[in-house]
Amino acid sequence: MRDNMDDIDKDEKLEMMRHSTAHVMAEAVQSMFPDAKFGIGPTIEDGFYYDFGLPRSLTPEDLPGIEAKMKEIVKANLPFIKEMVTKDEARKLFAKQPYKLELIEELREEQVTIYKQGNFTDMCRGPHVKYTGSIKAFKLMSIAGAYWRGSEKNTMLQRIYGIAFSTQKELDEYLAKIEEAKRRDHRKLGKDLDLFLIPEEIGGGLVVYTPKGGRIRTTIEDFWRKEHFANGYEILYTPHIGLSKLWETSGHLGFYRENMYSPMSIDEQDYYIKPMNCPFHILAYKSRIRSYRELPLRWAELGTVYRYEMSGVLSGLLRVRGFTQDDAHIFCTPEQMSSELSEVLRFSLHMLDTFGFPKYKVYLSTRPHDAVGEPQRWEDAQTELRRVIDESKLDYKVDEGGGAFYGPKIDIKIEDALGREWQTTTIQFDFNLPERFDMTYMGADGKEHRPYMIHRALFGAWERFFGLLIEQCAGAFPVWYAPVQATIIPISDQHLNYARKVEAELKAAGIRVEVNDSNERMNQKVREAQLQKIPYMLVVGEKESANNTVAVRLRSGEQLPVMSLEEFKAKIKQMIDNRVNELKP
Amino acid sequence: MRDNMDDIDKDEKLEMMRHSTAHVMAEAVQSMFPDAKFGIGPTIEDGFYYDFGLPRSLTPEDLPGIEAKMKEIVKANLPFIKEMVTKDEARKLFAKQPYKLELIEELREEQVTIYKQGNFTDMCRGPHVKYTGSIKAFKLMSIAGAYWRGSEKNTMLQRIYGIAFSTQKELDEYLAKIEEAKRRDHRKLGKDLDLFLIPEEIGGGLVVYTPKGGRIRTTIEDFWRKEHFANGYEILYTPHIGLSKLWETSGHLGFYRENMYSPMSIDEQDYYIKPMNCPFHILAYKSRIRSYRELPLRWAELGTVYRYEMSGVLSGLLRVRGFTQDDAHIFCTPEQMSSELSEVLRFSLHMLDTFGFPKYKVYLSTRPHDAVGEPQRWEDAQTELRRVIDESKLDYKVDEGGGAFYGPKIDIKIEDALGREWQTTTIQFDFNLPERFDMTYMGADGKEHRPYMIHRALFGAWERFFGLLIEQCAGAFPVWYAPVQATIIPISDQHLNYARKVEAELKAAGIRVEVNDSNERMNQKVREAQLQKIPYMLVVGEKESANNTVAVRLRSGEQLPVMSLEEFKAKIKQMIDNRVNELKP
Repeated sequence: MRDNMDDIDKDEKLEMMRHSTAHVMAEAVQSMFPDAKFGIGPTIEDGFYYDFGLPRSLTPEDLPGIEAKMKEIVKANLPFIKEMVTKDEARKLFAKQPYKLELIEELREEQVTIYKQGNFTDMCRGPHVKYTGSIKAFKLMSIAGAYWRGSEKNTMLQRIYGIAFSTQKELDEYLAKIEEAKRRDHRKLGKDLDLFLIPEEIGGGLVVYTPKGGRIRTTIEDFWRKEHFANGYEILYTPHIGLSKLWETSGHLGFYRENMYSPMSIDEQDYYIKPMNCPFHILAYKSRIRSYRELPLRWAELGTVYRYEMSGVLSGLLRVRGFTQDDAHIFCTPEQMSSELSEVLRFSLHMLDTFGFPKYKVYLSTRPHDAVGEPQRWEDAQTELRRVIDESKLDYKVDEGGGAFYGPKIDIKIEDALGREWQTTTIQFDFNLPERFDMTYMGADGKEHRPYMIHRALFGAWERFFGLLIEQCAGAFPVWYAPVQATIIPISDQHLNYARKVEAELKAAGIRVEVNDSNERMNQKVREAQLQKIPYMLVVGEKESANNTVAVRLRSGEQLPVMSLEEFKAKIKQMIDNRVNELKP
Repeated sequence: MRDNMDDIDKDEKLEMMRHSTAHVMAEAVQSMFPDAKFGIGPTIEDGFYYDFGLPRSLTPEDLPGIEAKMKEIVKANLPFIKEMVTKDEARKLFAKQPYKLELIEELREEQVTIYKQGNFTDMCRGPHVKYTGSIKAFKLMSIAGAYWRGSEKNTMLQRIYGIAFSTQKELDEYLAKIEEAKRRDHRKLGKDLDLFLIPEEIGGGLVVYTPKGGRIRTTIEDFWRKEHFANGYEILYTPHIGLSKLWETSGHLGFYRENMYSPMSIDEQDYYIKPMNCPFHILAYKSRIRSYRELPLRWAELGTVYRYEMSGVLSGLLRVRGFTQDDAHIFCTPEQMSSELSEVLRFSLHMLDTFGFPKYKVYLSTRPHDAVGEPQRWEDAQTELRRVIDESKLDYKVDEGGGAFYGPKIDIKIEDALGREWQTTTIQFDFNLPERFDMTYMGADGKEHRPYMIHRALFGAWERFFGLLIEQCAGAFPVWYAPVQATIIPISDQHLNYARKVEAELKAAGIRVEVNDSNERMNQKVREAQLQKIPYMLVVGEKESANNTVAVRLRSGEQLPVMSLEEFKAKIKQMIDNRVNELKP
């Protein structure tokens, strides 16, 4: 979003500079390959590319040479000269450039704009910087094949990607950010640490949790269940498929069909795999007459749902087709609605805080034009949503009219270590389903009333949340949910007995510990444990065996003072029980 | 199964007596309705029925009158007289009996056997008892409509069902068993205790666990996970759908298709909802090269699968279409196979024992003719299966040639309180899937080897296991998994404060407790708690508030000595932690 004119100038200047850098790159390539044919060279986010037809394939080793030539051109501070020529003149100018000729034929104007710098002339609308010397900081990043005009029917050209910034500092920061993103990429870490798979044999966006990822999921789900029970929720389990009639009643086949899979036929009836859990919870509600005395009902489920996503947008754990929502529905009276909302926001923040995310962004979305439900209920709900966010003292943005047609909502997005925003928690009113399913409760007045219904997910989708956790800590999980909490490394075979004793004692205390009894050397075992990002390494040798102690090493490489086994056990237990996200006891 | 000639005689005598009782009932009905038309009157399990065409509808109030008339006939000790007549004679004898005439026309023999006792003559092959006095104990149970010869096109007759036994004692025992079965019926208890639903809106055989059933499931699954981790298992999570190609590779589309649902289409590819978890675990195994050093792998999953069952056979929780298997796959070397089997049987029995089932039956099924896999592996596997059962000291039966085509297996069936057998645990070798998926591990010799694969489920299907648990304890769950473990009943409103204090203290100790603060009278609250089968009622009044004690009442109505709150807390905690199935501390 652009906030003021300075920013616009700045953005446009940067854009112009990036485009000019593409021309400079083209000139450099032309100096290396005088017969080069030129495609197009636009700007993209953070940089630019240019497509070339060349007599041989480029390799990454060619890039420094091209960069060096570009630096010469920049240093020479050549002017960019704009000229207008007729189409005929252009045809002559680009007589040896088939791609440019093709573009010329498609121009509707009779006049063609060209830009020249040094020995290079390009057909281009501009604008450009005045002199090549205005180009401040750039780097060529990669080479890729690209069909001319994106069509498989055309020639394959060679594309060079580059980045450019106003200052070297910005460029360095960008490179560091990319390195950091690579280091934290949950897809790579998922493989390196053996946490999960998305096997193509099963199909896109469908996740298998292998033992270590499964252990993390079990640990966090255990925590989730415990917290939910402690906070007055009950846990339901519902099927993954349901009859088409149910999805008609709920309206999903009307307004959500494009996200649903095609039906399965059972005994000549159509069943759909569920995209949401709500209709099942509503049937449970409606299984008997409800009294105001029973409300509020807070019903949660770790419900695995399946939604269609285009295969092109699937991305590791962050965008999948099958995912487990940490879903809940709250059914309450109008009188209870305000306190339920306070409670659900408090609970959401408590859950997110447990994982140590550094920053939240809160969004409130209000009544759109095509809303269903009583306007007064909308008004009341929005007033209360504002109130609870205000009370939380969190910054928030209001998206006026941006609510779903069925109700207003709060979304919480967490900012990861790279500053990217991801939606996790959502708290949504629903004025639609209680009407469609004619949900009621008997009031103290002996009459039927319509309950409030609030949908809510704290982690959102477990898959995405897990992806964020991996990136957030770069795979170095806090000890409380690390799949292996400590590895015991005997200095030599002689200390294996003591290592087993330490293992048994820690296991008895419920700690996930393993002994590395392989034939490798100690240093190699330490390195392996560090690669596996195991929180604690307990190195045990002569002295430790004799004194019933352990030499504790953190995965950072830091060495803690030698401590008694008892002391270590007490410390690690305390950290696990209190879900401490730091490692140093 | 018949074991000797005495049993055969006994069975045949009983059968004969039941058949004769049907004739006596027909005579009694004839004495009440001289124009009665007679259908057929065969024996069935435990008794008999007879179909009648009558001038008016029978009501249950008619049965005692018919029974009284039958008793007179029995007391008169009339002989059953067998005669042979020609078809023509039979046509005259049954001239007013259209159903009998129809049957006569279908007889291939020229001679017709008839039996007479008293005023009643029936066309019947016999045999019968010699005198009506041999009929010892019978009871008429119910009336139902039944089409002549079972066809909707025919007249609707009235059927009377009866039971008959050799002694009054046996009949009384049978009636008590039926009463007991009704009392324990998990479908009725599921409704009364609000444990689960099978809503027709979702579809047949698809279960929703409502809060109390959900709480039981969570508690037992927690226990299951803990025990699995403690026994060296890891837990996987896998999707509910997979590409058709995967099910082709696994062979399920070949040999299991009739139990699978029709496919869903996603991006023009067919996906099937999973009937089993195995192919997913195998893909996880194959995600990297495995070394003998990693084996055995014990991978478990609470995997919800969907299998087609005819709607007619669906029955509460005991036969469903969607169910959660407590599945596991063990992958091991040939050297490990023997100890893995011992371990898995020991673990299975430990899990079943925890729930206090009184009796197991063990079945061993061996190599069928159409088996796949190396004969030597079959031989080794069967030898080891026999060995581990022998070691367990359990009785078992061998079903020679009754194994699946892919491997031999052990099944454990548990006998419920009514003596019915239900399969829970299964331990199956698989010599098929490792071949189909070309599973290997690198041996110590640096060569590729084929691992052994063992499928195993302990509870079997969670749904069925839960149904059995409900029937086993008639809904009076042991305290460790009872959804509400104790209810606090203040004698009057004055004691509500103390009740809240007791609640808070027990909740803090992790006990599932509630206060009944409704306006009902104390006795009503006690009755409600008993109906809900809550293990403990803590009645608190003046004395208890003053002394910090609780008056403990069991759901049986039994009163325990008053004890301090501390003492009660310690006792209930101890019972929960040790998973004691009895209530008395």
